[in-house]
Amino acid sequence: MRGMLEDGGIEAGAKAVTGAKRIPLDGLHYAPLLPDTDMIYCVGLNYAKHIAEMGREMPQYAALFPRTPRSQIGHNEPMILPRVSDKLDYEGELAFVIGKGGRYISEDKALDHVAGYSCYNDGSLRDFQRHTHQFLPGKNFWGTGAFGPWLVTPDEFGDVASHSVTTRLNGQVMQNAGFDDFLFTVPYLISYISSFTELLPGDVVITGTPGGVGTARKPPVYMKVGDVVEIEIDGIGVLRNTIVSEADVKVPGEA
Amino acid sequence: MRGMLEDGGIEAGAKAVTGAKRIPLDGLHYAPLLPDTDMIYCVGLNYAKHIAEMGREMPQYAALFPRTPRSQIGHNEPMILPRVSDKLDYEGELAFVIGKGGRYISEDKALDHVAGYSCYNDGSLRDFQRHTHQFLPGKNFWGTGAFGPWLVTPDEFGDVASHSVTTRLNGQVMQNAGFDDFLFTVPYLISYISSFTELLPGDVVITGTPGGVGTARKPPVYMKVGDVVEIEIDGIGVLRNTIVSEADVKVPGEA
Repeated sequence: MRGMLEDGGIEAGAKAVTGAKRIPLDGLHYAPLLPDTDMIYCVGLNYAKHIAEMGREMPQYAALFPRTPRSQIGHNEPMILPRVSDKLDYEGELAFVIGKGGRYISEDKALDHVAGYSCYNDGSLRDFQRHTHQFLPGKNFWGTGAFGPWLVTPDEFGDVASHSVTTRLNGQVMQNAGFDDFLFTVPYLISYISSFTELLPGDVVITGTPGGVGTARKPPVYMKVGDVVEIEIDGIGVLRNTIVSEADVKVPGEA
Repeated sequence: MRGMLEDGGIEAGAKAVTGAKRIPLDGLHYAPLLPDTDMIYCVGLNYAKHIAEMGREMPQYAALFPRTPRSQIGHNEPMILPRVSDKLDYEGELAFVIGKGGRYISEDKALDHVAGYSCYNDGSLRDFQRHTHQFLPGKNFWGTGAFGPWLVTPDEFGDVASHSVTTRLNGQVMQNAGFDDFLFTVPYLISYISSFTELLPGDVVITGTPGGVGTARKPPVYMKVGDVVEIEIDGIGVLRNTIVSEADVKVPGEA
């Protein structure tokens, strides 16, 4: 996917597969949509109604924190409950992928830089997220960032604001919100990020999660082994993962 | 450098260049020590005396934020004052490079995973750093992360705690502190980071900066075009950069 975006973009990729044999989806193994991208920018609070209902002040800028590609999983792959924390929470989000890079991109030209949209589950270990004011550790556990199942191009997706995200845990709706409530829109995010760094083809931005996360519930809800978590965005599809204990899998890099 | 670390480490690299022709340093162009690494973890407050003198509570965990490789520059390359901020500040730091990857690395084995040490100037745009509670934007401007000039292997560097860092701005000492004041040591940082993610050969950790940064001075000192900033670590050498206006260079990715 990254190579395709670097080598001429979605249009060239679409031409290359025109007439290719169609394969049934059943039985396919899904990788994360971009397993090897350089950078995934994650947005903090971004749903105006949720911020208002929490009694918080509207932020002036988007809070950005990173997710490393090595923390990612694909659709249907296990999401890992690590041995050092039991505070695994879901965050259903809209992800967008940069197709055409750039620096100092203006908001009115920003949508020309988007290759497409997908679902993201920004799985978070809430205790590690709160170790300090910086979110990086809790947002970068191995096997916690679900990305997919596929990319939907802008011509098919249409107006972002007309879509919504739903998160289900074992079939029960936990989050549901429309993208018309974004405080920081896709063009704003592209313009802001490209004010400090060059955006490159294959970069990913995940746009923040609405209310209903497990950690804010009373009592809190954290995901347990065997739980099934689904992120659905209308016009894209369903990203589904089952929670698996780290004790039951091979951990990369462990001696 | 990354390829060498992945392909057998420093020892294999040293063997490969044994007997190679020596080249004078003068006139060499220096790239960032690892221009293409996946991840650079930056540590926040890490000098106990500085935290105490600021009247802050000692943190229980290391605050970690990211720097992207594309924000980096080498020794003697221009450090960029961007057009959207005039709050460019220095941060002299010790960087260490992972030679042998791993997950769940214990503190007592951690130093076996270090390929070597170098100087880092974690150039920061203080207004963007404070846009929200997350430091990412202010720490990732193009042309602000100076890394080098070279790698010093652990056998030559010896005990980290016996060394110190000095930052000079136009020849004047602005920061000076010993690594014996680290709140979070190199083994602690390796153990903590590898508790949530796999460390890979070529990963970089920069260990935080001591007191004396420009933004905390009264009045604040920010770097201006033509300023020369030097980070010196005894046993490594001097990392030197001159501040250049973004208006005077070609900006990658700009239309």
